[in-house]
This record gives sequence, C-alpha cells and structure tokens, in this order.
Amino acid sequence: MNTSVMPTQRRPLSDEFLQALRDHFGERFSTAQAVCEHHGKDESPYAPMLPDGVVFAQSTEDVAWLAKLCNEQRVPLVPYGVGSSLEGNILAAHGGISLDLSGMNRILAVHAEDFTVTVQAGVTRKQLNQEIRDTGLFFPIDPGADASLGGMAATRASGTNAVRYGTMRENVMSLTVVTADGRIVNTASRARKSSAGYDLTRIFVGSEGTLGIITEVTVRLYPQPEAISAAICNFDTLRDAVQSVIEIIQMGVPVARVEFMDAAAVRATNSYSRLSLKESPLLLFEFHGSPTGVQEQAQIVQEITRDNNGQDFQWADTPEERNRLWTARHNAYFAALQLRPGARASTTDVCVPISKLAECVAQTAQEMDQASFPYIIVGHVGDGNFHVLMLLDPDDEAQWRESERLNHSLVRRAIAMQGTCTGEHGVGLHKMAFMREEHGEDALALMRSLKAAFDPRNILNPGKVLPEPLQD
Amino acid sequence: MNTSVMPTQRRPLSDEFLQALRDHFGERFSTAQAVCEHHGKDESPYAPMLPDGVVFAQSTEDVAWLAKLCNEQRVPLVPYGVGSSLEGNILAAHGGISLDLSGMNRILAVHAEDFTVTVQAGVTRKQLNQEIRDTGLFFPIDPGADASLGGMAATRASGTNAVRYGTMRENVMSLTVVTADGRIVNTASRARKSSAGYDLTRIFVGSEGTLGIITEVTVRLYPQPEAISAAICNFDTLRDAVQSVIEIIQMGVPVARVEFMDAAAVRATNSYSRLSLKESPLLLFEFHGSPTGVQEQAQIVQEITRDNNGQDFQWADTPEERNRLWTARHNAYFAALQLRPGARASTTDVCVPISKLAECVAQTAQEMDQASFPYIIVGHVGDGNFHVLMLLDPDDEAQWRESERLNHSLVRRAIAMQGTCTGEHGVGLHKMAFMREEHGEDALALMRSLKAAFDPRNILNPGKVLPEPLQD
Repeated sequence: MNTSVMPTQRRPLSDEFLQALRDHFGERFSTAQAVCEHHGKDESPYAPMLPDGVVFAQSTEDVAWLAKLCNEQRVPLVPYGVGSSLEGNILAAHGGISLDLSGMNRILAVHAEDFTVTVQAGVTRKQLNQEIRDTGLFFPIDPGADASLGGMAATRASGTNAVRYGTMRENVMSLTVVTADGRIVNTASRARKSSAGYDLTRIFVGSEGTLGIITEVTVRLYPQPEAISAAICNFDTLRDAVQSVIEIIQMGVPVARVEFMDAAAVRATNSYSRLSLKESPLLLFEFHGSPTGVQEQAQIVQEITRDNNGQDFQWADTPEERNRLWTARHNAYFAALQLRPGARASTTDVCVPISKLAECVAQTAQEMDQASFPYIIVGHVGDGNFHVLMLLDPDDEAQWRESERLNHSLVRRAIAMQGTCTGEHGVGLHKMAFMREEHGEDALALMRSLKAAFDPRNILNPGKVLPEPLQD
Repeated sequence: MNTSVMPTQRRPLSDEFLQALRDHFGERFSTAQAVCEHHGKDESPYAPMLPDGVVFAQSTEDVAWLAKLCNEQRVPLVPYGVGSSLEGNILAAHGGISLDLSGMNRILAVHAEDFTVTVQAGVTRKQLNQEIRDTGLFFPIDPGADASLGGMAATRASGTNAVRYGTMRENVMSLTVVTADGRIVNTASRARKSSAGYDLTRIFVGSEGTLGIITEVTVRLYPQPEAISAAICNFDTLRDAVQSVIEIIQMGVPVARVEFMDAAAVRATNSYSRLSLKESPLLLFEFHGSPTGVQEQAQIVQEITRDNNGQDFQWADTPEERNRLWTARHNAYFAALQLRPGARASTTDVCVPISKLAECVAQTAQEMDQASFPYIIVGHVGDGNFHVLMLLDPDDEAQWRESERLNHSLVRRAIAMQGTCTGEHGVGLHKMAFMREEHGEDALALMRSLKAAFDPRNILNPGKVLPEPLQD
C-alpha cells in the first residue's frame, strides 16, 4: 500500500478551536478515533490519512460557519460524502476537519416540468432516483458506487450512461457553494443556458473540494425512456470488441450505454454475481428510445458487431434480466477484489479520442500481461474511457511500485494520443504526478492562480489536485 | 443611441509602444481613422468607442507577442472577430489596441473519426461547415450572424440548434488561449471527458476576452442527419404557440430546432425575404434523425400543436424550401431593422425555465405593446430563450431610456422566474447593470477575484462583464 504521500503540514488543533466546535455542533462534532479512521480512508490504494476531527453538517449554514472559523484559524477542511473516491480525494493529507455532508440528504425541489431537481449535497444517486421515480424522470449519471451528488459534482464524475447523457459537467445546472471564507454563493440560475458572466458552476464541478464546498446541487433530469433494451455480445479478441464500439459511435448510433469487459472481468463477475456469461471479451449494450427507435439502433449495432466477428448477440428484455446484468457490471470493482482475497485495487482511468481506443486498450493489455499481479479491464468505451483494476498485495511495496510504473506508462500512452490521465475519477493524490505532463506548466500556473484567488489560505482540501510548482 | 458608458481610462499610447508595433507587425498594424472606426462598433445600440490602433494577427505567436507588450505597458487589448456582437462586447471602452483575429481563418485539423475539428479563432461558422461538408459531419451552433468560432466561444453563443445540440459551453472541447502576460496555454486534451483538474476550457468560454485571448478552438461535430424535415405552424395567440413548445419539450421530443416568431416578426420577414407566411404567431420546426425517427417526432409535434389550436401545419421537405425558411429566420434581425428605416435595434436576451416561458413571453408582449416604438419577438423557445428587438430612433434619448426601462423590467421578470439576463449574447457593456441582481455580490466577488488572478493589470477587454464593486 502506498505510503509515499504523507501528511506534511499537520499541526495540532488549538483547544479554543476544538471547544468552539463542541459548543457549536455538540454531538455533531467528534474526535473519536473510530470516526476519524472512518473518514480518513477511501477506495484508493492509499494508507489512511486521518483528520483531527469530524463535523456532521446538517445545513449550508453549518458549513458556512465552519468554513469561516477554519479560514480564520487556518485549519484544513476536507469535504466528505460517502467515501467512495478512488484516488485519495477525501483523505486528510494535512489533517484538520473532515466535513461529513451525508446528513444533508434532502431533496429540496423537484421541477418535473423543467426536468430539474435541487438536492442537498449528501443525497446519493440511488436515493435520488428512488425519490423521483413517480415523476417519470430519472437522473442518468451512475458511477460504480452509490456516490453522493455533491461528491459526484466535485469529482466531475460520470459512469455508464455518459456516452448518451454526458457527465456531471454537462448535467449540473447550478450549485450552492460555501467559499473558503464562509460566504454562501449560488453559481447560476435554473435557465438551460446563460451567457451572464464567468461559469462559476463549471469552476466548482471537478474542483474536488479545493475551491469551495458544494452544499446543494441542481441537476438535469431526463424522461424515463419509453422503451429500453439491453444486449450482450462476445468477441474472440479485445480488439474486435473495441473496434465495434468505434464503428457504432462513428455511425452516430445514440446508444445509452456500451460497456466493455475483458475475459478476466467477466470471470470475476460470473463468480461474484452468480452469472454464467461466456468468459471472453464482451460488450454490454443498452438502448433507450421509442420502440421503433430502439429497434433501429439495435439492428445497426447487431450488423456492426457481426461484421467485427461478434458472437452470441443475446437480448435481455425484461427489467429483471437487465437489472441483473447492470448490477453485475456496477459490482465489477468488488468482483475483481475477490479475485485475490485481501488485495487492494489500484485503478487507472485514462480516456482517449475514440479513434485511438483500440490501439490504446490493446497495447495496455499487452503490457499488463507482463505484470506480477492479476488485473481486469472494464470500460465506458463509448467515451474512450477504460479502467485497469490492478489487484495488489497491500503489504508488497515492490508490487505497488510496479503498478505505479504501469499506470504511468498507460497515462503517457493516453496523453500521447491526445487523451487524459483521468476520465472520471478525479486527481486526488494519485493523479497529481501526471498533471504537469498533461497540462503543461503554464496551464498549471493558471490553475494555481485560481486556487489562490478562491482559497488564499489554502484551507480547502489542501495538498490535492495541483502539484507544487517546478523550482527554478 | 446610448452614450452613457463613456471611455474613462483612456490615455494616449506612447510613441515607443506605437513604434514597436509598427516594427513588429508592419502593415498589419494600423492607426488609420477608418480602420479604428470599423473596429470600434458592433451591432449593439452603443455609439462607437474607438481603439487607438488595430493589429491584424496571423498566428497565436503574434497574439502572445502583443499581449506581453500590452501587459508590460498596461495597454488595453480587445479581441475582435467579425464585429457581430450585440451588447457592446468588442467596443474599445478604454481605448487601446483592437486585436483583429479574422486573418486567423485556417482549419487546423479535422478528426472526422472522433467528430472533432480544430480551427483558428477567426474561422466563421459558415466557412467551417463549408470546409467540412465532405466529411458527412456538421457543426450545429448558429447564432444569427456568420460569427467567428473564437467570438462564439468567448460569448458562450448558441442559436437555433441549441435545444438539441447544446451551446458553445457543451461543444467546445478545448481552446488555445493567450494569457494576459503572453503565455500560450492549451486548456484540455481531445478526450470526450476528463476529471483532470480545473475546467480551464469553460473558464474561458463565455469570458468575452476578459480572461485570455482565444486563438484556436476545438469543437465537437455531429453526423449530418440521415433525414431532415422542417415544418411551420401558425397560432392565433402567442400563448398557444409557446404552450405547444413547452409540451413538446416536456414530452422529451428531440426536436433539432423550434423557433418562435410573433406576428410582427413574420410580417418583417415576409417583406425582407419575399415570403408569404401567414402573419400570426408562428413556430418553425426542424427534425433530425432516421426517416422513421423524424416521422415519429413530427407526428407527436403535430398532435401537440393541434391540441393547442395550431393551424396550417405545413411541411418544407426539399432542402431548397428549408434553406429559404431558415435563411429568412436568420435574417429576422435585419428584416426587423427595415420595419423602421434608420432605426438602431436594442435586443433583449432573457432565458427562463421552460415552465415559465408562456407567462414570461405573454407578460412581456403586453408590456411592450405600450412602447412608443415598434418591436418584434423571436425566440429559441425550446431553451426558454427569446429576444425582443426594439427599433429605436438613434437620435431620441427618451426612446433609449424607455427601451432600457422595458429591458430592465423584462430582466427582473426573468430573474424572478429563476432565469438569466442573457441566454446567449453575453454581458458586454449592456448587461453589466444586471449582473448584481442576477448573481448577488458574493458571486460577483468570486468572478472579480478570478479576473484579478488571470489578468492582474486589467488589460484584457477592460470595463466589460463585471460591474464595479458596491461602495461601503
């Protein structure tokens, strides 16, 4: 497990500060070891980094009060949703206060006629869809975990539906944000479009809690499709599977989902989710639309996969069959962990232009086959985004270094193909080393100046996203 | 004509500065009165505000050289595309140099297989579509004018296709930007999605040349639809027309375009474009998709318009008929100007959630009927966005004040309905007065801190977008 990034600027909190939090929040402030431990780890390969205390917020005003005090006292403040981040995003690298927003879990306003909903940051994506089910609308963005909407906005998350519906970047309409010094700002109106000044919404989307704390999120909703169908298609080779996706996207077929799993991922999923899918590279499709629209899409997709040596095109027409497949896909991460009991996963997240995808996946698989540990590849391939889950022995330093070397090689390949080091997981701690390679020093300088403007005392999730400037 | 915003910080350029520009740019630098006049006006109701000189750039390096010098010498630098802005966006309010990018008009890279194209900032939308025609792809965003891609990105522009394809916010993938101090930055990779740090692309999209100078733009392209059809439907009342649109959007019909014109707009268009459309409130539709998909959409739309007392649903099936109609719609601005020869137009641009649209348009028309000057209403109503074109006598101060009062009343109505003062024209000079009302002082403070971070000497298009802070 990685211990290379250690807390460096930790200093003990003053008694006055601790007392002020106790006075204000009562039992909603805790310094208990178990609570700090729970808030000091995520799903990344990093060793825990504990906060000095945890505040459980119930309102935007709670957050504003806390931010103001932390800013005055220069205490790090790290927003926490459900702890499902994959890159160390919510670890308390510099100690301070972990701000748990999971208690802010109310749906504030459903505007079904405008296809928008406003929720508190702690609402999770499954809770949201459960609560709006009767409106005939749904929220499509689905990272693997049942993440909070605030966390998803902060991470610029996406998932399996992004190829059709976009990511949090396209689907957040406005945010309520608490600034580093405790002001409460609404970033935009509910208009579908606006040219009224700088795009504050998208400045905070993807900023990982380093520019402000998201407390409320307004997102777009979509009509539940009139017809849905899902299908599976197996391939002999990874390249044939990916080539099919490229041609489907290039034909402009509006698939709702198209997911890739390599043979190892299918094997893990069969075992974890008690399925009996054929254990070869596989594509999992979903089509949304009118009944004839869905039929049209499916027909074109079937032709393209057949031309690329796809086999056993199988339909999953009932909601039960579909749910079973998609639940299995969402559980691929946990399924993979069971391939090696006791393992910890390190996950890559590159995204490349679709024309480069087959080459990028094939070269990656070839390189990964040399690794000393098991891995699976899954991907939101319609976007050009795929993940290698590397299953590491947490006590083996050499394996960690090997995985980092392979990840770096993959990122370098993706960047050379005009892609990115992270399609949807964010930078956190784990991708900071790639930021210079991807963006260049001048772009990083702009990002740093934005950080300094919005958080001059560097209290908001310090030590994340931006690497230190190069020394002359 | 408005003369209330006057240049306030103008100071003469030094001889050394002028000589440096002459030495570097030769004939591509001009201080000729005619050239400065041409670059000191746009399509807004403002009196011209002239720059002290104009540089005609041919490369990103030209721009970087100029920005560095202007920054050192604290000389205002105002990017200029084709001069089609509507809110005074490109007027040289503080003098300085107008930077004409129209000579940077090369298509740099077509990646048809990835649906992206990279162009220099001076390429216009019509030129782009002309040059990529053979790829089977097209770029959908179409503001009324044949604007430059750089200007469209800087304005966060949209147009008639936004209801289906989004605005520049959704369609710009990355930018090359010259910073205030002359560094050249690429804002993002060509990956369809990324979580790698702050969203520099969307910081510059809509920043109206105040944060950096856009010199290259990479945008998304779309497959030319397999089938296209267009139709017109007339209504007795404006409310019935708008109500139809609301129901169409709420049904989730993926219309490519749905435009509203009031009776006066139709009358003006008939006269200007030699058409004989029925002169009552009208909706103009376009459907994109597969042949059966288009048929499905059209059928639902016909049913909805019929239920809302729509009459004379007429098809325009041939490309010639369609082009004639859409050219007429794009020329509505110029058609309106002919309603009152010698008039100058002041244009409103509010955008509201779709559920509020009928109420907003109806109340606005009622109020406008009291005005002492003619007006028309047109709108990209699928987005909740509509424009009132007010035709003013340029020599009549009272009329200008009346139009400003009516505009302010409309903006207040839109903001009360959770809408915005500008859906697509930008802030420029003309909407600055509404920024506080729409965003609040704390959000403006964040925008100002961003401006100060990216342009600490305030040389980039100074005096635009952000109003001065309130005095204590």
